[in-house]
Amino acid sequence: MTLPTTNRRVVLASRPTGEPVAENFRFEDEPLRALAPGEVLVRTVYLSLDPYMRGRMNDTKSYATPVAIGGVMVGGAASEVIASKNDAFAVGDYVEGGTGWQTYAISDGTGLRKVDRALAPLSTAVGVLGMPGLTAYAGLLEIGKPKPGETVVVAAATGPVGSLVGQIAKRHGARVVGIAGGPEKCAYAVDELGFDACLDHRAEDLAGRLKSACPSGIDVYFENVGGAVLEAVIPLLNMFARVPVCGIVSWYNATSFPGPDRLPLLMRAVLSNRVTIRGFIVSDFAELAGKFRSEVGQWLREGRIVYREHVVEGLENAPAALIGLLRGENFGKAIVRVGPEER
Amino acid sequence: MTLPTTNRRVVLASRPTGEPVAENFRFEDEPLRALAPGEVLVRTVYLSLDPYMRGRMNDTKSYATPVAIGGVMVGGAASEVIASKNDAFAVGDYVEGGTGWQTYAISDGTGLRKVDRALAPLSTAVGVLGMPGLTAYAGLLEIGKPKPGETVVVAAATGPVGSLVGQIAKRHGARVVGIAGGPEKCAYAVDELGFDACLDHRAEDLAGRLKSACPSGIDVYFENVGGAVLEAVIPLLNMFARVPVCGIVSWYNATSFPGPDRLPLLMRAVLSNRVTIRGFIVSDFAELAGKFRSEVGQWLREGRIVYREHVVEGLENAPAALIGLLRGENFGKAIVRVGPEER
Repeated sequence: MTLPTTNRRVVLASRPTGEPVAENFRFEDEPLRALAPGEVLVRTVYLSLDPYMRGRMNDTKSYATPVAIGGVMVGGAASEVIASKNDAFAVGDYVEGGTGWQTYAISDGTGLRKVDRALAPLSTAVGVLGMPGLTAYAGLLEIGKPKPGETVVVAAATGPVGSLVGQIAKRHGARVVGIAGGPEKCAYAVDELGFDACLDHRAEDLAGRLKSACPSGIDVYFENVGGAVLEAVIPLLNMFARVPVCGIVSWYNATSFPGPDRLPLLMRAVLSNRVTIRGFIVSDFAELAGKFRSEVGQWLREGRIVYREHVVEGLENAPAALIGLLRGENFGKAIVRVGPEER
Repeated sequence: MTLPTTNRRVVLASRPTGEPVAENFRFEDEPLRALAPGEVLVRTVYLSLDPYMRGRMNDTKSYATPVAIGGVMVGGAASEVIASKNDAFAVGDYVEGGTGWQTYAISDGTGLRKVDRALAPLSTAVGVLGMPGLTAYAGLLEIGKPKPGETVVVAAATGPVGSLVGQIAKRHGARVVGIAGGPEKCAYAVDELGFDACLDHRAEDLAGRLKSACPSGIDVYFENVGGAVLEAVIPLLNMFARVPVCGIVSWYNATSFPGPDRLPLLMRAVLSNRVTIRGFIVSDFAELAGKFRSEVGQWLREGRIVYREHVVEGLENAPAALIGLLRGENFGKAIVRVGPEER
């Protein structure tokens, strides 16, 4: 085949204040240069959209360097190798790695891993068997440590992290209460994911309903949203409760934080109930990736774990899809299909 | 000697709203009954006053049962055994235990431990070698885990917990920054306790001064006060910082928490820097008590650890002393001398 000569990419045009807008992104076409020795050229198939991307659009200190103005938006993707000067990768290989919001990417292979499409659909490499899946697996099992009979609460329950957190917690004998936006997602969490209950955070009196749904309190709260959900959770935290923190998406777009001050509420719970709160990112548990993919991959093949994807067609729709993700508009793992899986 | 016939005790007359007042306490005299088999009668010498007592005056869920209205105020004390029907304790023994705010107490021996006055002054049994000391030792070493060259911040720096936290952290090679109320306490923390710096939280711009005093950020924040100190600490927390939480005394008397909401600030730091926050109480580390007393006792005898006591004379002054303690008016470990050490 003829190799492409042009790459289309999405760069950060300006930093958002509050909710991102279309103007924060810019599409650029650039000529593709020739590969240097050791490099591969990949064609993006599935671009993953994830809440953490909002943080990279800020110019603030975090675990990761912000995207520079004019820089390609960061992101994981599942791609096909279409040219290679790297012995570890052959043309026709499918790979997963942080190749960003673009139709093609040149990589020296660092951080790329081969994906065997015979074991699971390619898209799962950025979802249930990828970064979000490992986030759920490691955060729940290494920090949350649910025990049989304990109550696990997770928000964004139908998202790629929350849905796996709940399903793994069920497999460990816990009672699982999800929180999601709207009755359709809640029904899915109970009927398809097997959660014991799922509450609509858009309906009234979340705190009261959560209390009713957790008659024995909360032992593990897998934190991915912050905001009103966290506020409803705090008074229900049990003695020695564990709170793995992997996201606070409801606050990512916030520009002010009106009172009352809820920090004393949290710290009182931490003190009175000897709660552990621990932030993490998936790379802290990179050494678990093999075990995770083997274990969850097996469950997936056996049909004991289900997942749902929210696929948006075309790189041109990625900005709107990220904006929608931050509003909770996706239903399942948000993925942009940048190109066809097979040429 | 003739045994006493009357016990004077301080009971909780009413629950405080905000800061406790004298009327929340009531003094009562009661006849002392005869000992049953297995019991001992102790004469209180040193009653310990500690911030946690404020929490027990509330009727709220915590790790401990609240003091009942009309019930004796809880508290640790160092006492002399003056009558015994328990083979484990002889008349003339000195003991430490949670015998409460009273001149005498009858105990079946549960929770009483003998104190050897030849090894350290009796008062240290409720201070540097007692509950506050173990709180500092266990919280710092088991949760804070300071490494050489790291920065440890501790408030209430001249109190029994903070002063030992800082001294132990220094012994582990950390840079120690204390926070205390007023220049006199700050000078003591630097000159006597050997802290690298100590900041007066009553002076202006604590956040700015703390930042200057911690040029490499904060790796361990030993939390015992909450409030403005915590707020100043949060932006300085380093990657993988640890926050053992043993108290939030600045909030104990608070009845409202005006905005802005600082919870997002904390959760952002937890997430971005993978911070661990963990509440604990001293009894979680009861198995360390022997090692602690042996190690810190040795340092004490060698003069490598110093401590300071704030002794108030007479049980009648205990309520005012606790009220003052919650205002930060004590300078050193607050102790009430209820009776003479020797009869």
